[in-house]
Amino acid sequence: MNPDRDAPYLRLDPVILAANIDRMARSAKARGLALWPHAKTHKSLEVARRQLDAGAAGLTVATVGEAEVFAALGVPGIFIAYPLWVTQERARRLRAVAERTQLRIGVESLPAAEQLAQFKIPADVMIEVDSGHHRSGLTPAAAGELAAQAGNLGLKVAGVFTFPGHSYAPGQGNGAAGDEAAALTEALAAAKAAGAAADAVSGGSSPSAAHAQPVLTDIRPGVYVFNDAQQLELGACAAEDIALSVAATVVSKSGGRVILDSGTKTLGADRPAWTTGYGRLLEYPDARIVAASEHHATVELPGPLPALGTRVLVAPNHACNAVNLHNYYVLSSTGPGTPDPAATMWAVDARGMN
Amino acid sequence: MNPDRDAPYLRLDPVILAANIDRMARSAKARGLALWPHAKTHKSLEVARRQLDAGAAGLTVATVGEAEVFAALGVPGIFIAYPLWVTQERARRLRAVAERTQLRIGVESLPAAEQLAQFKIPADVMIEVDSGHHRSGLTPAAAGELAAQAGNLGLKVAGVFTFPGHSYAPGQGNGAAGDEAAALTEALAAAKAAGAAADAVSGGSSPSAAHAQPVLTDIRPGVYVFNDAQQLELGACAAEDIALSVAATVVSKSGGRVILDSGTKTLGADRPAWTTGYGRLLEYPDARIVAASEHHATVELPGPLPALGTRVLVAPNHACNAVNLHNYYVLSSTGPGTPDPAATMWAVDARGMN
Repeated sequence: MNPDRDAPYLRLDPVILAANIDRMARSAKARGLALWPHAKTHKSLEVARRQLDAGAAGLTVATVGEAEVFAALGVPGIFIAYPLWVTQERARRLRAVAERTQLRIGVESLPAAEQLAQFKIPADVMIEVDSGHHRSGLTPAAAGELAAQAGNLGLKVAGVFTFPGHSYAPGQGNGAAGDEAAALTEALAAAKAAGAAADAVSGGSSPSAAHAQPVLTDIRPGVYVFNDAQQLELGACAAEDIALSVAATVVSKSGGRVILDSGTKTLGADRPAWTTGYGRLLEYPDARIVAASEHHATVELPGPLPALGTRVLVAPNHACNAVNLHNYYVLSSTGPGTPDPAATMWAVDARGMN
Repeated sequence: MNPDRDAPYLRLDPVILAANIDRMARSAKARGLALWPHAKTHKSLEVARRQLDAGAAGLTVATVGEAEVFAALGVPGIFIAYPLWVTQERARRLRAVAERTQLRIGVESLPAAEQLAQFKIPADVMIEVDSGHHRSGLTPAAAGELAAQAGNLGLKVAGVFTFPGHSYAPGQGNGAAGDEAAALTEALAAAKAAGAAADAVSGGSSPSAAHAQPVLTDIRPGVYVFNDAQQLELGACAAEDIALSVAATVVSKSGGRVILDSGTKTLGADRPAWTTGYGRLLEYPDARIVAASEHHATVELPGPLPALGTRVLVAPNHACNAVNLHNYYVLSSTGPGTPDPAATMWAVDARGMN
């Protein structure tokens, strides 16, 4: 871990973690959905193993590096849910991954499909469609043409997928799940009409997962495993469901404000307009982080200010980006003190493989 | 480096780096200012060595971990320009650092000064004042009382310092430098009146460094060594002065937009309201990064779109946070291709020590 044990560290509560894993696993099973948790959130073999033990069908990842790390686990399937551009060097790596697991790769353009075929990647393809987030992905209607082209190239089209990222705004989880279902229904029909045997219909995001509609066969939530200030402020979790935090120290105080030593280099700089600040203080629900720089979080809070030197737990806005800033999780279910040198630590195994 | 050589990587142009180091060194020398570059920007022994070779008086750092890394260089002085909360564990580390270099530590409260005295840290203290950024720091008038208290505790008050962070807005560099000078002048007089021998007057930030006023003895700019999209948009550098970028790949395109694989996990998520987006594309000055998620940068640009698979260089908004996301710099003065396996690489030695 950080050579300075009093510096902000990444704290993971294993009791809450286990409850979050169990809750999503049961929810997916009850609805007949295959759960492919997105491992970009945690980048951790220990966490992934627990998700698989709870019944996950496979793991979702964003990068080739992440696929390599998690293939070592002996996972049944890995889905690189990303419009990957495959080069010769990447092809060699992907073939090695495919020897250890069943590989699925996202595709949303003919040139990318041609690269997959040219380099003989032994992977099924999943066609990405845009369901309203307007990032990558084809229109649903265009999925048929790409399915036909991919088939002509000798690729197996396993299904269609989308990321309903517009679920990340207050009150949008249900509506985004509706858009997701509509886009995937149209894309699936188009792919089948083009002759693809496509039967995987993959959606999901943590705020929309609870609203996933029956057309879906798979969901890919990521953040649910930890939760974070964004999920809390979206109403997608309760404060007691947040397993991940940064243990910070009060270093300055004056007139209703304190400064914590956890800034954007330990919490991340994510700050969507609909959030109340740069994260939330777990023990101070009324506190707000009104500004942040690399090593300073400026906190406004009512009532008596905590003393200089007090350690507090800060839930970052975005767990995925916060985790990627740290080398280790320190496991603890007690308060926010200096970590016990004997505390269990888990590596962020895929840190930096972005 | 990242096991996937085609993933976004951190690229450093050594020719521009050398020019940036030389320009600031000459500017400081011409004005009789001691240059204490902030090493939190680069976290690199190789870069620090070049700054010292060019005449830097010492290095500024933000954390104990960074101080430990850079003390190994044999640097004449290290200034932890931060209101550090010193524990017994940290005291042991700081004493080890002080055996290798002359140590200065920021202080802005009596309890923090008492900790420094109690743990017998062999360091001079620098009193932090607020010059308008309204983060940490005392009012200038209050510097006298703390200087007296520190003296009574047996601490040597070496001087006063501020960070004029309100220079980070368009057109504010000169005004912030004026506020900096006014606050430091008042604080210095107050400290001297309280009997402190204080003679170091330390300010600086990259946008205000060129405007530093005669009361200052030391400046602590950090970003100037690389420059970034923020400095460009503030007018603090020209595009050709940007030494640091992330080499990214076009993975999706449609109707005036492309998606790059460099998202917030490789560029950082910094996005002040006055910036035009999440960074700037060096080869496409009219392009704007209108949205970013972890692995996607959504770019709008006029004219013909680059082909899928094209590599482009993206200057991050904030060099300090971007560097901290990577393990290595890949040195290159040519185009943005896949890095040569024989390319020189420099470690981000203090990565994660936040």
